[in-house]
Amino acid sequence: MADTIFQKILDGKVPCHKIYEDENVLAFMDVNPISLGHTLVIPKEPAKMLGELSDDSAAALGRVLPRLARAVVAATGASSYNVLQNNGAHAHQAVFHVHFHIIPKYEDNSGLGIEWNISEPPPEELAGIAKKIASKL
Amino acid sequence: MADTIFQKILDGKVPCHKIYEDENVLAFMDVNPISLGHTLVIPKEPAKMLGELSDDSAAALGRVLPRLARAVVAATGASSYNVLQNNGAHAHQAVFHVHFHIIPKYEDNSGLGIEWNISEPPPEELAGIAKKIASKL
Repeated sequence: MADTIFQKILDGKVPCHKIYEDENVLAFMDVNPISLGHTLVIPKEPAKMLGELSDDSAAALGRVLPRLARAVVAATGASSYNVLQNNGAHAHQAVFHVHFHIIPKYEDNSGLGIEWNISEPPPEELAGIAKKIASKL
Repeated sequence: MADTIFQKILDGKVPCHKIYEDENVLAFMDVNPISLGHTLVIPKEPAKMLGELSDDSAAALGRVLPRLARAVVAATGASSYNVLQNNGAHAHQAVFHVHFHIIPKYEDNSGLGIEWNISEPPPEELAGIAKKIASKL
């Protein structure tokens, strides 16, 4: 399989607008931002989807998210922001290397648009699916 | 300020459909799911937004996300899923205690709907905002 664009960035074959780097994580600007300051945070470990990422890489990534979020807010003045991580083409994943988006949301409504159609299942249905998920841990 | 519903769940004052718990993290079913298996993952540390969360809590939360994502996929059969974390009312945050949503996305399109209006800023603009964010780290 060909390297993803993010692997090429990690390998130094493609440039990026870097914000942050440590042993496990790289953060840089999305070149097609949906709002000003739209930032990508990726693990150096190659993994297509979050479920394939090692616990240690995921912890290292989680650790830097608050700091990066604060910096995005401080630099842009946005007071609201979304953190989004997509897995699978049907869930809007375009590059198959795990990545978290930090997306400022502005008063002019630029940023992430969300459709949120809630349901109200009966408690026994929720209990059933909770038990099923817990059994797979 | 009154406790959030998630604080009440953490304090055992309100029940939940629990999936997972450790020293730092609790995962349970969203009672208003936008798709089957819609799961919430929260830190025990009280923090309204991700940027206010301690590094250690964020790392502990990040660490369990892959495992929880795999379990949600295994239990539901969904092959795609979104992980979403909203900060600020304008960014669709409804409960002011940090929470990550794990939302399966199904063939019938139930799950997270995303509006994604990209832009193509010139490289010098991206370089400028990257530098500004990095300066706030």
